[in-house]
Amino acid sequence: MKIGIIGAGQLGRMLALAGYPLAQQFQFLDTSADSPGGQVAPIVTGAFDDPTSLERLAADVDIVTYEFENVPVSALHAVSRTRPCLPPVEALRVSQDRLYEKELFTKLGIPTPPFRAVDSLEGLRAAVAEIGLPAVLKTRRLGYDGKGQHVLRKAADVEAAWAALGQAPLILEGFVRFEREVSIIGARSTRGEVRCYPIVDNTHRGGILRVTLAPHRSRALQQAAERHLQRLLRHFDYAGILTIEFFVHGGRLVANEMAPRVHNSGHWTIEGAATSQFENHLRAILGLPLGDTRPLGHAAMVNFIGAMPERARVLALPGVHYHDYGKASRPGRKVGHATIVAATAAERDRLVKRVQRLLPK
Amino acid sequence: MKIGIIGAGQLGRMLALAGYPLAQQFQFLDTSADSPGGQVAPIVTGAFDDPTSLERLAADVDIVTYEFENVPVSALHAVSRTRPCLPPVEALRVSQDRLYEKELFTKLGIPTPPFRAVDSLEGLRAAVAEIGLPAVLKTRRLGYDGKGQHVLRKAADVEAAWAALGQAPLILEGFVRFEREVSIIGARSTRGEVRCYPIVDNTHRGGILRVTLAPHRSRALQQAAERHLQRLLRHFDYAGILTIEFFVHGGRLVANEMAPRVHNSGHWTIEGAATSQFENHLRAILGLPLGDTRPLGHAAMVNFIGAMPERARVLALPGVHYHDYGKASRPGRKVGHATIVAATAAERDRLVKRVQRLLPK
Repeated sequence: MKIGIIGAGQLGRMLALAGYPLAQQFQFLDTSADSPGGQVAPIVTGAFDDPTSLERLAADVDIVTYEFENVPVSALHAVSRTRPCLPPVEALRVSQDRLYEKELFTKLGIPTPPFRAVDSLEGLRAAVAEIGLPAVLKTRRLGYDGKGQHVLRKAADVEAAWAALGQAPLILEGFVRFEREVSIIGARSTRGEVRCYPIVDNTHRGGILRVTLAPHRSRALQQAAERHLQRLLRHFDYAGILTIEFFVHGGRLVANEMAPRVHNSGHWTIEGAATSQFENHLRAILGLPLGDTRPLGHAAMVNFIGAMPERARVLALPGVHYHDYGKASRPGRKVGHATIVAATAAERDRLVKRVQRLLPK
Repeated sequence: MKIGIIGAGQLGRMLALAGYPLAQQFQFLDTSADSPGGQVAPIVTGAFDDPTSLERLAADVDIVTYEFENVPVSALHAVSRTRPCLPPVEALRVSQDRLYEKELFTKLGIPTPPFRAVDSLEGLRAAVAEIGLPAVLKTRRLGYDGKGQHVLRKAADVEAAWAALGQAPLILEGFVRFEREVSIIGARSTRGEVRCYPIVDNTHRGGILRVTLAPHRSRALQQAAERHLQRLLRHFDYAGILTIEFFVHGGRLVANEMAPRVHNSGHWTIEGAATSQFENHLRAILGLPLGDTRPLGHAAMVNFIGAMPERARVLALPGVHYHDYGKASRPGRKVGHATIVAATAAERDRLVKRVQRLLPK
């Protein structure tokens, strides 16, 4: 079976590496032949919204999946007329717009911060009056890693925020003074089998994920997160990996966003769980039995942002695994990560600090 | 760094898959572009004894390693004049000849069965008189998976054995009525760091490895095996993975053969140990710190010989991982394997039986 992957970044690369032992072959579509995936499988180069390049990809593969969210839905609909395209295009459509996403969460009984669509300065003022301050103004589409967001702390911030973002359709969300951020990742197969990974603790800085600790042991939060995930999986008749990121506020989950794909907060599963999110994504879209999602100890993932640390010093740490995506250094770019698997949470936390001390300044 | 691998079979393929996260690139040399490695990295096609194809491989890479033992030593010597070639060619030379191998074991104090070189029918009769029967007549070179061997049980077998094998230089070995077969795998880096995996229990049938159980818990045998391995590693100023296969007779180790490469009895380390033999081979030849060789539970490896079992039924078993080498079916051919990782030896053994029941008849 040959799987077409739209996007040849590190997520696509890790999907291919997980799929080779299952006798899968891969073909990427990306704008650049120099992408991380291109080092492990062939790439068709072309724009993601170019029907010709999508057709060329589809013609050469048995099934199409995607590793990032900014593929035009119309282009994917065209592909899905000739090849199975999973996860379902409808999940991608909803995830591309923060307003649709929060409306669906609300409809399915998944708690969110208060939110209002904003299309004018007057509308923004009205939304601020309803939701109160602080609040966060966000572009509805194309935001990632904290881009396209503006925090409003006082009334005087309203006009500056509008000036910065007002060109695009917006959403205003109540600011959640969260105690922590967690995410849940689960797989649903084309046969309807579902497996959830344990929820994990995420730390962001500058809008970019820095560290994931797994598992976050809270039976109540785990049950709530699984319930929310199950509702979304059922709603979309989903196949593949689906991720929801939550704030924890007052000891309860508040959904921030979903991602219809393998996720950075699941990279720890490569060495830290019985089956990785990448393998389970493939099993799910191929209709194979899903793999055990049990954690193998206390794991952590430390992202390498901008530049890689010295390889030999990371590899010298016990129980630490090193992942280099083969990308050039660039400020703010995710270029690799380390996974830590330890017997106790205390040992894991010590190793996280030791890895962090090796990060380039 | 680009690593040239001579041989693009499943061992080379698993080396490349282990090396991508370490930001390595790979280039294979094999006689057929259709080999398992060719699905995950580029192949130079050519004969292993063709100086031109070896030169083409070497010209394009920073370092050369090999995944099988029948590379002509002279060809490898030529390569090693322009590129580091690891493990050392001398280890390959010795491992290619059962006589040299047993002579070295003896010199280093590593116990072996009694053995005699045999070059004539008279020589064979003399060797039988000295060693006694039963005994095993083997070709000194190019034997693998039980090929090129003949068991002599009574005096009348001598002429038939000679007729079958007498074209090639031979060795007669005392027949070891072993209680079990075990192997040890260890890595030594170019910096002299050494790490050994736990010894494992191997079951062969028809001369082909069928099942490995890991670890085999015997402190005395582990210490003896490590001592023997260390002597060989030091002798060769070795870098890479080295394997020794032993018989256990009267509760003691008797060395059967060595392999200067990653080994089938180490495939369980991909999911069953903190660091796989494939990653440690690469770390060793690149001079990186070696990874933890600790087992993650009770593991087993079941070889798929001749044809693959039904994938979905294997994947449905808990804690079982599936490896398909992408080869066509053929009787006696190693086409894939399953790894089992369980919390107890009893659970592991039950899962081995369940996998074995799925093997094609």
